[in-house]
Amino acid sequence: MPPGPFAAATAVRAVDDHTWQSAIAPGWDIGGNANGGYLLAIGARAMLAATGRPDPVSITAHFLAPGKAGPVTVSTDVMKVGRRFSTASAVVASTERPLVAILGSFGELGSPEGPELIDGGPPLLPDPEDCVPIVATETFPPPFMGNVELRLHPDDVGFARRGPSGRPLVRGWFRLLEGEPIDGVALLCAVDAFPPTAFNAHLPIAWTPTLELTSHVRARPVPGWLSCQFTTHFIAGGFLEEDGEVWDASGRLVAQSRQLALVPATP
Amino acid sequence: MPPGPFAAATAVRAVDDHTWQSAIAPGWDIGGNANGGYLLAIGARAMLAATGRPDPVSITAHFLAPGKAGPVTVSTDVMKVGRRFSTASAVVASTERPLVAILGSFGELGSPEGPELIDGGPPLLPDPEDCVPIVATETFPPPFMGNVELRLHPDDVGFARRGPSGRPLVRGWFRLLEGEPIDGVALLCAVDAFPPTAFNAHLPIAWTPTLELTSHVRARPVPGWLSCQFTTHFIAGGFLEEDGEVWDASGRLVAQSRQLALVPATP
Repeated sequence: MPPGPFAAATAVRAVDDHTWQSAIAPGWDIGGNANGGYLLAIGARAMLAATGRPDPVSITAHFLAPGKAGPVTVSTDVMKVGRRFSTASAVVASTERPLVAILGSFGELGSPEGPELIDGGPPLLPDPEDCVPIVATETFPPPFMGNVELRLHPDDVGFARRGPSGRPLVRGWFRLLEGEPIDGVALLCAVDAFPPTAFNAHLPIAWTPTLELTSHVRARPVPGWLSCQFTTHFIAGGFLEEDGEVWDASGRLVAQSRQLALVPATP
Repeated sequence: MPPGPFAAATAVRAVDDHTWQSAIAPGWDIGGNANGGYLLAIGARAMLAATGRPDPVSITAHFLAPGKAGPVTVSTDVMKVGRRFSTASAVVASTERPLVAILGSFGELGSPEGPELIDGGPPLLPDPEDCVPIVATETFPPPFMGNVELRLHPDDVGFARRGPSGRPLVRGWFRLLEGEPIDGVALLCAVDAFPPTAFNAHLPIAWTPTLELTSHVRARPVPGWLSCQFTTHFIAGGFLEEDGEVWDASGRLVAQSRQLALVPATP
């Protein structure tokens, strides 16, 4: 696990073979509730330890209750130990209730030989210094934004300025503070770190609760900024999906994500 | 549960509050191994019964071992009972080993009011009678294809004729046999019923094992053919994603899916 503030804020300590202690650190919240990707990252650390694998490959979280700063327990259950992958489930719980249920497969991401097809590419972004930094406040932008470094595409911050762009699209740069290296677990946080695409649709600027978040990690990123793109194509049936792509500084796709969120209620 | 051969082949019987008996029916296989979406559907039936909710909303399966025809047990664990959704995990196991691990949230899909944005639409398909029926054999096309009705876009069956189209795209119609109504659980089968997109890439025509499959069900379909589209954008790192969209006969998006599969080994 690379050292740094994110690693410290997601560290887990073994209680026994399938129980891990951790804590939701203060400041990783949005309106008092821990960011979902950060909460998932705590669970993923325990699952990596339980499976003895270095990287998350595919991991799904269902969010059950908001997480407040304070102690949490992660209960893990390793269901399969295979040659390439191990599969485990986990529940991250506060002293009062389960917060997030997780199912994932873990392995070692290398540089496999074989065919490639890349139908897409990193988003076209101005340099980080020409993008819009998101500066945390105690309210909005939320405290969480002070624990990661985000630079948004100037075209995608309309929601905070002159009004939503009308396109449910959010693009920007992501990195951890203090030059902390980004491992597979940090990618799970990156895919949930940006403002919701819904902010740029003509929807109320309101909490879009995530029901479920799935991330696929394709490769470990090289050092440097990640370029990220989040899009929504279908707001229907009371739900919206948000699809993410994360590219590393070498131009390689390192993660894909999709979450299912609830359409904010009209105020 | 609507009556019909799919409902019969996915029926579960309660043993106790969290244990269900079922059976992998003969003929729902590909090379002797049960189709993944079908196997997931058995688990989903038990999870709906365990949660008392009518519809799957978001459900993720990790495939642990191939399932052969014969008895299975589904162990369910309901982790949250909320106002709108309940979340549960499940393991479908044969008498010998766990086959699939599932995590899902369940609710009641209705016709919620609220904003809509539909950036996309059903695939452009010739009428079903002008598409290519897939006729099951004992080998390839596999027996599973005899238990659902598939009609493929003529442009997307190159892999079986003159060679792959080169585009990892598969479009076609889906319905159940004997006019059986398609419920949310049948949608979980539909999203995994088509030949892999990889068959149309310049990849070996070989088994692309699915590591993980997530489906979001947006609405219950109206009666009639479903139009389905599956695409792959990134074959990289030894993995490929396959994204599915399923539209009902009224032109409404009823499900989205994404699976992470392993790139077939070069022979």
